Amino acid sequence: MDTLSVDLGSRSYPILIGAQLLARGEQLAARIRARDILIVSNTVVATLYAAALRAALAGRNLVEVILPDGEAHKTLDNVARILDVLVTNRFGRDACVVALGGGVVGDMAGFAAACYQRGIEFVQVPTTLLAQVDSAVGGKTGVNHAAGKNLIGAFHQPAAVITDTSTLDTLPDRELRAGLAEVIKYGLICDADFLGWLEGNIGALLARDPQALAHAIRRCCELKAQIVGRDEHERGERAWLNFGHTFGHAVESASGYGSWLHGEAVGAGMLIAADMSRACGMLSAADVERIRQLLTRTGLPLDVTAVRASDALTHMGLDKKVQAGRIRLVLLRRIGEACVLADYPDDALQATLAAHFG
Amino acid sequence: MDTLSVDLGSRSYPILIGAQLLARGEQLAARIRARDILIVSNTVVATLYAAALRAALAGRNLVEVILPDGEAHKTLDNVARILDVLVTNRFGRDACVVALGGGVVGDMAGFAAACYQRGIEFVQVPTTLLAQVDSAVGGKTGVNHAAGKNLIGAFHQPAAVITDTSTLDTLPDRELRAGLAEVIKYGLICDADFLGWLEGNIGALLARDPQALAHAIRRCCELKAQIVGRDEHERGERAWLNFGHTFGHAVESASGYGSWLHGEAVGAGMLIAADMSRACGMLSAADVERIRQLLTRTGLPLDVTAVRASDALTHMGLDKKVQAGRIRLVLLRRIGEACVLADYPDDALQATLAAHFG
Repeated sequence: MDTLSVDLGSRSYPILIGAQLLARGEQLAARIRARDILIVSNTVVATLYAAALRAALAGRNLVEVILPDGEAHKTLDNVARILDVLVTNRFGRDACVVALGGGVVGDMAGFAAACYQRGIEFVQVPTTLLAQVDSAVGGKTGVNHAAGKNLIGAFHQPAAVITDTSTLDTLPDRELRAGLAEVIKYGLICDADFLGWLEGNIGALLARDPQALAHAIRRCCELKAQIVGRDEHERGERAWLNFGHTFGHAVESASGYGSWLHGEAVGAGMLIAADMSRACGMLSAADVERIRQLLTRTGLPLDVTAVRASDALTHMGLDKKVQAGRIRLVLLRRIGEACVLADYPDDALQATLAAHFG
Repeated sequence: MDTLSVDLGSRSYPILIGAQLLARGEQLAARIRARDILIVSNTVVATLYAAALRAALAGRNLVEVILPDGEAHKTLDNVARILDVLVTNRFGRDACVVALGGGVVGDMAGFAAACYQRGIEFVQVPTTLLAQVDSAVGGKTGVNHAAGKNLIGAFHQPAAVITDTSTLDTLPDRELRAGLAEVIKYGLICDADFLGWLEGNIGALLARDPQALAHAIRRCCELKAQIVGRDEHERGERAWLNFGHTFGHAVESASGYGSWLHGEAVGAGMLIAADMSRACGMLSAADVERIRQLLTRTGLPLDVTAVRASDALTHMGLDKKVQAGRIRLVLLRRIGEACVLADYPDDALQATLAAHFG
């Protein structure tokens, strides 16, 4: 088992990465000290892993909220449902919320923990590759609004992230590929060497080679922990992690949540952002082609022509990266280094949108 | 005009206290730099002061949400309504929420600002004595749940508190007295000299003598700013500010929000907490009588016999001060010094509840 640390002073916390952490359970039980525990999961993940989690936490006062599966259910109403269960069970400030599932479950459970009695402890037990490499680390919690992704939420750091890599055995192929989009993101924004490693090992990753997956998860968590440790509240560098997300959110919002997986939308969004970086004179056409090839080999959908360019722009306008009415874009200065740009040429954006959207 | 400071490092902010700050407006305009501003108020306060606030912020992009008046409306649904307006108007992270009103408006506007895009700026313009001396300072935001007060919320500090003491001219007598309950609280928990001053000046305060009111507001804000600066997230000393609130919340919850004003319930709760302090051997019967006399002279209702003791206990069990299943109580070690006690005799609590509740 590997242990990393997210260094945030008194709110620092460990990331445990290893096989069979749910089945064995001692590490998990040792990291959750609360007596009253609310397990939040979804119908699919609970069927697979709730029994193991309950066994690991045997002897505690366990309560469960099982939500429907999918991004369409990441709503304030479902957070209110979690809060109702905490209240109904008279849980106090010393209770703990455990998120067992992917990014949707983690974001909602974390937001409920942030709001209940102005903040109680929560622990992430991510079961999708995307959550393990990205959403479970860093304390971003929240829900979607009909008009835009993650518009409502809080920064609330978990007390621990417990990543059981064995849970990936049951992950559908489509979700594995969506998670790999976020893995590729890390290479593009801050680690060109890692991107090279991914190009050499994408076959092993898609074949679920345990060593390759463990290496990728560990490297992504290291990079994210460093970035979050330097910029917890996204005043600067942390925005790099949104690479591909502005265009991706537009794809998700304009399509209605549910048709695109979040990671898929980010994958398509990264290609558009790379192309925009080229239009701004930072990447070469060969760089963009290199990115397209890796995303294609990963089996990610890249065709967003079903979304109209004007709709995409409308949805981008509601993205959180807007300042003073202007859309700030996370682009690539080069492969392995991101940047945030507000003073790009408008016609470059228009041309890029027109080239990709319908 | 007086200016105090709440010292919280990079999140420090000023408290401006003075007459006619809304009517004159320059100070207000100078402290709110955002272009996009959402004003949150209630029907009563908006009628009186929204025009002045709009005039002070002329030239900005102003949007308003006017909520119904009263504690019964401090709900997650109304916060969702505020969030909808922020989204619909496509406000970005650089927008500002201005709370114009009492504690209910401030708590909801602040919570919406805390949750929108994971936190945007907000400014408190408190118009009740209770909000001016207590709820507008310190960053506690949130809403009630049917099962208990303030069970859902966030710590989110305002960027400024702008206290126009002239707004007290239109405050109903009943609300003035309710605010004075919180004023008396400061004397009881941490400033015996101030309590003595209050005993000598309660007549002037009830007669709305501007100098007396300004002195009381300033002293309460000084004391609260010191406590919050030392213990922002209520790990210790800040809990003293909840003196009277555990019993008071039980009165409010058991009566249904709306029949008791929050400050009235706190006033009655302080008398019960003082009596419990006596039962625990910390205050004398004469101390309790002294407190009762001041509360009575302030015109506060102290009869809670309409609430059954068993109902009060049930509602106290859901209070945020519960740890490990035990109700922690904020009591008085002596007049002018509070303490938090968990190891009180259970029969002292039972006897105290029986002596006050029905």
